[in-house]
Amino acid sequence: MPDTWSECRVLVTGGLGFIGSNLVLMLLKRGARVTIVDRVSGEFGGDVANLGAAIHDVDLRDVDIRDATAMHAILAEHDVIFSLAGQVSHPNSMADPLYDLDLNCRAQLQMLESCRHRNPSAKIVFASTRQIYGRPIEMPVTEDHPLQPVDVNGVSKLATEELFRLYAEVYGLRTVCLRLTNTYGPRMDLRNPGRGFINVCLKRALAGDTVQLFGDGQQLRDFVYVDDVSEAMLSAAAMESGFGQAFNVSCAQAVSLREFVVELQRLLPFDVEVVPFPADRKVIDVGDYVGCSRKFQQLTGWKPKVSLAEGLAATVEWHQAGHEASSVLAFGGDAAS
Amino acid sequence: MPDTWSECRVLVTGGLGFIGSNLVLMLLKRGARVTIVDRVSGEFGGDVANLGAAIHDVDLRDVDIRDATAMHAILAEHDVIFSLAGQVSHPNSMADPLYDLDLNCRAQLQMLESCRHRNPSAKIVFASTRQIYGRPIEMPVTEDHPLQPVDVNGVSKLATEELFRLYAEVYGLRTVCLRLTNTYGPRMDLRNPGRGFINVCLKRALAGDTVQLFGDGQQLRDFVYVDDVSEAMLSAAAMESGFGQAFNVSCAQAVSLREFVVELQRLLPFDVEVVPFPADRKVIDVGDYVGCSRKFQQLTGWKPKVSLAEGLAATVEWHQAGHEASSVLAFGGDAAS
Repeated sequence: MPDTWSECRVLVTGGLGFIGSNLVLMLLKRGARVTIVDRVSGEFGGDVANLGAAIHDVDLRDVDIRDATAMHAILAEHDVIFSLAGQVSHPNSMADPLYDLDLNCRAQLQMLESCRHRNPSAKIVFASTRQIYGRPIEMPVTEDHPLQPVDVNGVSKLATEELFRLYAEVYGLRTVCLRLTNTYGPRMDLRNPGRGFINVCLKRALAGDTVQLFGDGQQLRDFVYVDDVSEAMLSAAAMESGFGQAFNVSCAQAVSLREFVVELQRLLPFDVEVVPFPADRKVIDVGDYVGCSRKFQQLTGWKPKVSLAEGLAATVEWHQAGHEASSVLAFGGDAAS
Repeated sequence: MPDTWSECRVLVTGGLGFIGSNLVLMLLKRGARVTIVDRVSGEFGGDVANLGAAIHDVDLRDVDIRDATAMHAILAEHDVIFSLAGQVSHPNSMADPLYDLDLNCRAQLQMLESCRHRNPSAKIVFASTRQIYGRPIEMPVTEDHPLQPVDVNGVSKLATEELFRLYAEVYGLRTVCLRLTNTYGPRMDLRNPGRGFINVCLKRALAGDTVQLFGDGQQLRDFVYVDDVSEAMLSAAAMESGFGQAFNVSCAQAVSLREFVVELQRLLPFDVEVVPFPADRKVIDVGDYVGCSRKFQQLTGWKPKVSLAEGLAATVEWHQAGHEASSVLAFGGDAAS
């Protein structure tokens, strides 16, 4: 990466998705030349509407990250690669585990191999997940916490983290993994089920529907606003040492799901109902989670800046503006399905 | 599994390989009905000669474990499944990492899915490796030692262990993983390079060639005789609790590579030469390793019985009898290549 993002050639896989699109918009503001790989025409792709008019400022490639040939050519052309494309639903990873492994691990290994041979100086940032810790045995969770994922998605991401570490140690690739926690903000995907509590909650609250809390609603989370996550991604790509490591990206402020809902009720009128935990969710639920990102903060200076109240206000405002109606562009494919 | 192995329907994937064939012969002696899945016609398959005349006592299927359709039908028919087929070379896992991941992780996940839907009561034993620990930070290594594999083979196996744990926890599958260390004995594969120190050493010693020791030859290992490993496999399949766990299978007796060579020199005339560590091996070498299998011994009563002197004598005797000349049967395919 150059000293600044200006003219830096950046690839964002999954750049039409929730976190990806917010990251792309931030990169464009800083002057980066952005290529996006996403499944514009695919069932699980992102939404071109997430970028609005900025869609014309990026080089958008409708490519499946499993397509080795297409990816080889694209990967070779970039200084920084943000690997965000993947299967993101935890329940779906149990319903179709091989698909999850193929996207979240095998395609990532293919990418590392490609960079090793064709672009060994690229910075490569992988969007990992706090889910790889499984059910925390002590909090706040640091990177030294044992890893015991509770679903296939977590296993796939854990394996990919190990591959990122390995390719840094053995081949000197400049890889970094960020373990993201519950991210929220504008452009959250409210279309599909299986995206977790925040998505379902926000979708129902926006519609004025009753929001269900599983169990007693006292489960702790650390919610991070998407711009803080994007800043963390940029900080990771700017690192000049510490490659091969994985870092927590957390706000370290414990908030219960109920408190999150109460905060949201300041902005939107909706009712709350407490219901028993559905059996198929309970078995892959990790309970409370509060992370510690001191290691990443000390190395990069990054820290979260947006409070839950500010972040939720921005989120509600964006979604109330009707952006979630999907693409208004004359763009091929069925991304809006 | 029934109370005894008599009439038990057992599948051994990789049953023509080194450990697999020794396990199959032990199972046949105990009256089990054995099916073998191996690549009889494939480049990386086992060797039909390993079974000798017993080849006529097994149901041999020339199937690639990646072939989901063929595997579904076979998996459904068995009470116990020993999953030994895979890519076993550590250097090869770096040369073709996707192939390693496909065999050692993806095909294993496919097998778990198949059993979950079609044969949920089967016992499933996975042949894992001590390589997933990486370079030991304290010895003897227990199962609580951090996992930090130094090659793709180790990452693939680590991921599969996590999947085996997950499928036991979430679906109640009766899975067990055994972390094998340096196994030696009759039917070791001396045909291919990349099989590790013992194989190369034994091949050269049998031919009267000079044996090379990398570094100073003081690297510690715990060598386990193959019949002890087979007994451990049978003990794992006989477990009635503790599913989803991984267990070390070690002899807990530290022996240096040099001591191993000296022991072998009592049986065969050959010279020893100390050479610098080749760079491509050093980067994936884990240094000393001595494991602790107390957890497995306490749960199952298994313990290693064969001394290094006894085991090496039996190994040399078998290989000197000319068995490594590959198949003498009129069997199709190129297994002997």
